[in-house]
Amino acid sequence: MFFHHATVGATSNTGDREHTVEFRERIRRSFDRQAAMATIGAELTRVEQGSVEIELPFDEKLTQQHGFLHAGIISAALDAAGTYAAYSVIDPDASILTIEFKVNLMSPGRGERFLFRGEVTKPGTTIIVSDGRGYAISQDGPAKLIASMTGTMMVIRGREGIEG
Amino acid sequence: MFFHHATVGATSNTGDREHTVEFRERIRRSFDRQAAMATIGAELTRVEQGSVEIELPFDEKLTQQHGFLHAGIISAALDAAGTYAAYSVIDPDASILTIEFKVNLMSPGRGERFLFRGEVTKPGTTIIVSDGRGYAISQDGPAKLIASMTGTMMVIRGREGIEG
Amino acid sequence: MFFHHATVGATSNTGDREHTVEFRERIRRSFDRQAAMATIGAELTRVEQGSVEIELPFDEKLTQQHGFLHAGIISAALDAAGTYAAYSVIDPDASILTIEFKVNLMSPGRGERFLFRGEVTKPGTTIIVSDGRGYAISQDGPAKLIASMTGTMMVIRGREGIEG
Amino acid sequence: MFFHHATVGATSNTGDREHTVEFRERIRRSFDRQAAMATIGAELTRVEQGSVEIELPFDEKLTQQHGFLHAGIISAALDAAGTYAAYSVIDPDASILTIEFKVNLMSPGRGERFLFRGEVTKPGTTIIVSDGRGYAISQDGPAKLIASMTGTMMVIRGREGIEG
Repeated sequence: MFFHHATVGATSNTGDREHTVEFRERIRRSFDRQAAMATIGAELTRVEQGSVEIELPFDEKLTQQHGFLHAGIISAALDAAGTYAAYSVIDPDASILTIEFKVNLMSPGRGERFLFRGEVTKPGTTIIVSDGRGYAISQDGPAKLIASMTGTMMVIRGREGIEG
Repeated sequence: MFFHHATVGATSNTGDREHTVEFRERIRRSFDRQAAMATIGAELTRVEQGSVEIELPFDEKLTQQHGFLHAGIISAALDAAGTYAAYSVIDPDASILTIEFKVNLMSPGRGERFLFRGEVTKPGTTIIVSDGRGYAISQDGPAKLIASMTGTMMVIRGREGIEG
Repeated sequence: MFFHHATVGATSNTGDREHTVEFRERIRRSFDRQAAMATIGAELTRVEQGSVEIELPFDEKLTQQHGFLHAGIISAALDAAGTYAAYSVIDPDASILTIEFKVNLMSPGRGERFLFRGEVTKPGTTIIVSDGRGYAISQDGPAKLIASMTGTMMVIRGREGIEG
Repeated sequence: MFFHHATVGATSNTGDREHTVEFRERIRRSFDRQAAMATIGAELTRVEQGSVEIELPFDEKLTQQHGFLHAGIISAALDAAGTYAAYSVIDPDASILTIEFKVNLMSPGRGERFLFRGEVTKPGTTIIVSDGRGYAISQDGPAKLIASMTGTMMVIRGREGIEG
């Protein structure tokens, strides 16, 4: 079949090298200003156009009552990965706001490290849809899918906002 | 009209006083074991049958890049409120697992304190649906709705699980 | 407590009587142009500012394999109710586009009639959030909650759109 | 990288040829009993283990007010595709119930035909997560992604259910 499941790559007006360098720095600077990411120990480990990865070492301070990674922390990392994936396909002077996201929790957050990948499924001038997946990683086995996310992001220019 | 929008109260086999006392303690103990809640500074401030409230003082370590409460932290608190609301309507020997949840972020997380209320919309023997709302609270104005959540929870008995 | 669970009423610049009359007609005209609503037999039975009701008689042609109302039909009616609730709070020259919605199916679609109510939870100049509930109605018992919905709508003015 | 975005194939106890033949027939029979699918003109065009496709010719009776395919019809077809994808990975004597699903509408439903593909992202003994994508197909251009879905399905055995 000619339909592929893969993520639709971002295309619009982002071809030149200068821009490419620029978006990586912009995303890194923004990520570094997110105190919440530092608080949970999240690291920005990969930034491509339309795809961003965040990694998180297991830490007891992030657990739920059974000692696994808290669903809220999984969601925070997936939201961040999806949001920065959207950042990578917009104009340098625009910004991104998460309107909503949905997370499916598939397996307990049990592992030594966690990887969260956000990818742009649908770029757009106003609305961007990102999908994400979270994996638990251990020394003694393959990465395990623990969660998926779909998020809707809004591109903000100038003073517009979703604030009532 | 005779249809009301209000939350459907939980009813089944939970009438006796002993049980009522019991579920509050059980929820409090479980909440206290969630290290992630302590890490973000969340407090369990109200536990009723079918309704749980969690409060969170603003803290710079929980912010996103513009200095507001991070969407992931909002989601973590809403998920916890919805999960414990579900806990309040199940048998003492059962447990709750969040299968999925969706969060709508409506206004920036700007405020001195935040209140997150989770309520059971649909009790059930296997699946429970909870809804939640998050509010920003400031001295100088009314509480502001900043987020809503709908979550699907699964009642776990014995060793069953959603792990593949 | 001073926080209420109720739907936030729409307020902005919609006070005058002329407008009030106008939005009812506009919604009714738009609904009548939705051929899909006629195909499934849906009727627009109530239009208030921020709240719209759609009713649907049971029909065998709308069933799933067990003879109950199909989840897709439930979703179609809930989406329409939520979308028209959003229509009721926007300027006469604007339009509404559903960006996304989530439906929880709580009980089988078993009944003689079904009522779907959409309500605006968060009005806004660009993004509107609507919530909805679906009920099965029978002669011999109370209305039963069968589904809930949260939808995100975008206000469209002029030629903007979410098309990539 | 060793993490792939692709759909996780279903694996458990479904290897023998007899079963393979069986699930196709079972899904086809169930689909044929869904009167709603016939009403909207949906055809089951492909059934593989963990992946199901449904196609729909454009029909004016399925439109919203601007003449495009109604979001509710898109959702109905995506839900069905995701549900039958889940059917393809369960035991012959079990059944599937959609607990909830979320749909993102990305582009107007404009086209001559529409293809909806549902795929199992996470198989499980009790909970199955399916993802879906909808495409508009026209003679004069490539297929266009118009919608995505994530749905949570529950495996039903014997008399259990989510009915309260």
